[in-house]
Amino acid sequence: MGIILGGNQYGKAENRIVRFVRDTPRHEIRDINVTTALRGPFEPAYLVGDQSNVLPTDTQKNTAYAYAKTEGVESIEAYGLALARHFVRDVEPVEGARIEIEQYDWDRVSVGGVEHDHTWVRKGQEVRTAAITVDATGEHVIGGFKDLVILKSTGSEFADFLVDEFTTLEPTHDRVMATSLVAEWRFGAVPADWNTAYDTIKQAMVEQFAIVQSLALQQTLWHMGKAAIEAVPELVEVRLKAPNKHHFLYDLERFGIENNGEVFHADDRPYGLIEATVTTDDAPPAGDAWLPSAGLA
Amino acid sequence: MGIILGGNQYGKAENRIVRFVRDTPRHEIRDINVTTALRGPFEPAYLVGDQSNVLPTDTQKNTAYAYAKTEGVESIEAYGLALARHFVRDVEPVEGARIEIEQYDWDRVSVGGVEHDHTWVRKGQEVRTAAITVDATGEHVIGGFKDLVILKSTGSEFADFLVDEFTTLEPTHDRVMATSLVAEWRFGAVPADWNTAYDTIKQAMVEQFAIVQSLALQQTLWHMGKAAIEAVPELVEVRLKAPNKHHFLYDLERFGIENNGEVFHADDRPYGLIEATVTTDDAPPAGDAWLPSAGLA
Amino acid sequence: MGIILGGNQYGKAENRIVRFVRDTPRHEIRDINVTTALRGPFEPAYLVGDQSNVLPTDTQKNTAYAYAKTEGVESIEAYGLALARHFVRDVEPVEGARIEIEQYDWDRVSVGGVEHDHTWVRKGQEVRTAAITVDATGEHVIGGFKDLVILKSTGSEFADFLVDEFTTLEPTHDRVMATSLVAEWRFGAVPADWNTAYDTIKQAMVEQFAIVQSLALQQTLWHMGKAAIEAVPELVEVRLKAPNKHHFLYDLERFGIENNGEVFHADDRPYGLIEATVTTDDAPPAGDAWLPSAGLA
Amino acid sequence: MGIILGGNQYGKAENRIVRFVRDTPRHEIRDINVTTALRGPFEPAYLVGDQSNVLPTDTQKNTAYAYAKTEGVESIEAYGLALARHFVRDVEPVEGARIEIEQYDWDRVSVGGVEHDHTWVRKGQEVRTAAITVDATGEHVIGGFKDLVILKSTGSEFADFLVDEFTTLEPTHDRVMATSLVAEWRFGAVPADWNTAYDTIKQAMVEQFAIVQSLALQQTLWHMGKAAIEAVPELVEVRLKAPNKHHFLYDLERFGIENNGEVFHADDRPYGLIEATVTTDDAPPAGDAWLPSAGLA
Repeated sequence: MGIILGGNQYGKAENRIVRFVRDTPRHEIRDINVTTALRGPFEPAYLVGDQSNVLPTDTQKNTAYAYAKTEGVESIEAYGLALARHFVRDVEPVEGARIEIEQYDWDRVSVGGVEHDHTWVRKGQEVRTAAITVDATGEHVIGGFKDLVILKSTGSEFADFLVDEFTTLEPTHDRVMATSLVAEWRFGAVPADWNTAYDTIKQAMVEQFAIVQSLALQQTLWHMGKAAIEAVPELVEVRLKAPNKHHFLYDLERFGIENNGEVFHADDRPYGLIEATVTTDDAPPAGDAWLPSAGLA
Repeated sequence: MGIILGGNQYGKAENRIVRFVRDTPRHEIRDINVTTALRGPFEPAYLVGDQSNVLPTDTQKNTAYAYAKTEGVESIEAYGLALARHFVRDVEPVEGARIEIEQYDWDRVSVGGVEHDHTWVRKGQEVRTAAITVDATGEHVIGGFKDLVILKSTGSEFADFLVDEFTTLEPTHDRVMATSLVAEWRFGAVPADWNTAYDTIKQAMVEQFAIVQSLALQQTLWHMGKAAIEAVPELVEVRLKAPNKHHFLYDLERFGIENNGEVFHADDRPYGLIEATVTTDDAPPAGDAWLPSAGLA
Repeated sequence: MGIILGGNQYGKAENRIVRFVRDTPRHEIRDINVTTALRGPFEPAYLVGDQSNVLPTDTQKNTAYAYAKTEGVESIEAYGLALARHFVRDVEPVEGARIEIEQYDWDRVSVGGVEHDHTWVRKGQEVRTAAITVDATGEHVIGGFKDLVILKSTGSEFADFLVDEFTTLEPTHDRVMATSLVAEWRFGAVPADWNTAYDTIKQAMVEQFAIVQSLALQQTLWHMGKAAIEAVPELVEVRLKAPNKHHFLYDLERFGIENNGEVFHADDRPYGLIEATVTTDDAPPAGDAWLPSAGLA
Repeated sequence: MGIILGGNQYGKAENRIVRFVRDTPRHEIRDINVTTALRGPFEPAYLVGDQSNVLPTDTQKNTAYAYAKTEGVESIEAYGLALARHFVRDVEPVEGARIEIEQYDWDRVSVGGVEHDHTWVRKGQEVRTAAITVDATGEHVIGGFKDLVILKSTGSEFADFLVDEFTTLEPTHDRVMATSLVAEWRFGAVPADWNTAYDTIKQAMVEQFAIVQSLALQQTLWHMGKAAIEAVPELVEVRLKAPNKHHFLYDLERFGIENNGEVFHADDRPYGLIEATVTTDDAPPAGDAWLPSAGLA
């Protein structure tokens, strides 16, 4: 038996870059967290400590900040593509690059009813994400978001499920449904505008969550993924991961108090966890698109 | 030398209560985190394990959920006052009650441009807080918020400071200023509407952060506290705690790239931390208003 | 173009189970966090909301607690295997089960120099992990740990690396090396004792971290993975993910104070991130062994 | 009505300092998190932005790192005292200094059964803390720890408590008791050795948790505080804050499975929260000893 080195990559995780545009008195802000990872012939670094092919992670950091200036961050997808292409094309031994980005949105402050030129409050809702891979399998762009916390106070059921000897759950036809949605979507083609695509996808999903009379969180996820692909034809695959954040009706009958779906305990753990992939039936091969880096998990 | 029991309290921390109003098809949501603490003649529980005066923390939990139904949560201040008064007035040995509450706001979802009746996304900005104390020193209401992340890309300076042998900082007349503000304010009288007061105070503070040409974060805090009191005359004291979330200009000159205040590294630690109290000169005594419970730190 | 459902699974995440053995006055404790996920013909739940094949996540929770009693938790690998087999063998439509477990260790308290029978303090070091998959591709057991924070104050170098136009890093032949290691290993066969295997693997890795004169974190990882496989012959694959937790020498020369590798700033972000796989050259196919559930990321 | 500036302070929070002693091949490590805060005549900085009295927080940071070298960190109490005295004595306008420190302990790694000279794993148990105040009220030293997670599987009861209309809890004479203890203690005199004092106090507390047949967590806290003062006569006051981390017996009877205190659900929220102070009856005045800085909450 021999022991060999398998898959490997290395990079700089969580570069917290803030990019302003200050060309006019009305500034713009992009607040991002950038993780880079390189793939290629780096075995000597592992096996014998030979760094001659290794571009330091410190250099990757410098590059990420420099590209925030020279390329700008009009969208995280475009910025990430530029950065990934640089590593693969311009740095001799590098064969593949994976760039993962989080974006934190800010709302412009109003002063006396007028939007302020250079002050913002952090929006705080979902975190937009992107994962760009450039390698021998092509250029792959994944968009997404995480931590979109969404809740409906009615319009959700769960009944007629499988029962075994450990089943004690009561069926219900009116419950609270809440989740903290993680969504990732793969582009099969470049959309006209990355930011417009993002807004359209998010809105399509949120609307389905609201309007589907849900027989299960599974069903809601299916409709959300389907609606996203229908809304943005460049999409070929959507992956959804949804914790079922349980809200338990609090038993107030014990105190002679009626509780018609009005007072709930929001529980922490455990939680249901539903995962689903929705794709087109002619989606191109994913190549390394989903092969993760590890920085932002 | 003898050893004696000093100050003490006990309660139930972090009851995650979600209260809906469902009287019409258009539902309302209040999402809160409630911590209760009781004070009184509980020495026997400590010294000899005698629980005869001890209302279980489990009972406090039940009460908090029950009051969410019977009193409702129109505002966290009013709900907290009702709950505190109950413990002090209705439970024989209890002499003082402290209720601390966090509130998480939700935005109503739009579907086809129309607000949806029963679906929301969590807003994600600042967390509104309240701390209500009812005891022999009176009834005290503290409002506040935490985690209001606010940033300005210019309009901030820091210069002409004290220099000693360990000082290496360069003065600057144009820097990024950002903080994650914690604010608490004490009411000397009951305002016409707790929720209106909250919105007015927050807006007054945010506006000052934007418009003051800041010579130091200290100066900005002073103006924020002062504006809050001027905007809501029932306020008698404002306490502010503001981490100076440093944004360091990234040195791109090394690569022949200009960086005129456009690309920054947002650093994590260490951070400046500025704390200030702003009061009226005739503020009534605070009694136990600021004596903390411990649940939500 | 049609839109279809792709890969999917569902389960109950983060069941916080504490199992005591109380057969004698000297109790034992197992403190675990269990995530279950089921795979199989669940399309109707997504497509039309038909739950007839869906064993509720609430039932999965009940089952996890019940098996903690009936099977016990002698090792998380054996417990997880029993639970996974139950779902696949005993619940008609289920075709695959994935069980992910975290284990938190406790140290027995000493009283007067004697180990106490029923009191512990949480150990607080690394979290032991397991991921068990039972499906048509076989039975797969992955062991591991996360959050093993390890540091050496010398014996680490980084020099002779690739230089490009964005490289500013200085080479060094004496630096601090620290990481918070995540390791996962795949068993090709069942070891004599799961717990002994765990201890042996961990010790082998820790020793390599200490004794290798490191020319790069990459090199250290290779030696750690190799040593683990050599120490426990049932292993066929080791995956390592290591953030390079940077410690920067603090510049005290500015104050006329010497700093010979004695005072460092431990930085938060960004950090290097090195990932490597080490395998035997005859490792059997992994099947779905590495196909993740999503609960504990 | 006038509006005035009240209490205020400013400083640098969470300086993550790692100090090695490398005088011999067997190195030593001190891993600390230092927060400084200064008090004094800083009103002009708030009111008009005049920084002439303001020692920058950046300078405070430099000083904390420099003192880690020049004074060393034999104990966090001694290091903190030296740093606080410096600010008050050596920096002209400063009238008071507050230094708060967290210490993370590391265990030396064993290689082949022998302790290694320069490699450690982070211990991960409780975080040791100190809060040093030097001002016109004197020199005050508070020691402590947080996050000491301790559990006993029997020897805990809760019964004969007060019952009101919201009480549904059942009394019990055998339950799991667990907490994540926060303790702070005030020294009335300087002990022979700060580190020995720490170990003695912690051991005294842990032993009481184990051996007291607890009728309430309150009673256990009293005995822990009392034992600490008895063990280290320089102590004059102990403050304890203990979340009651509930472990609920899981109902397995529904499945025909006996559960004699063997399988529990470890719940997250809500949790009981018990707070108590234990003092000597001749404790000297506390002055500003307990007046908090705000960095590490």
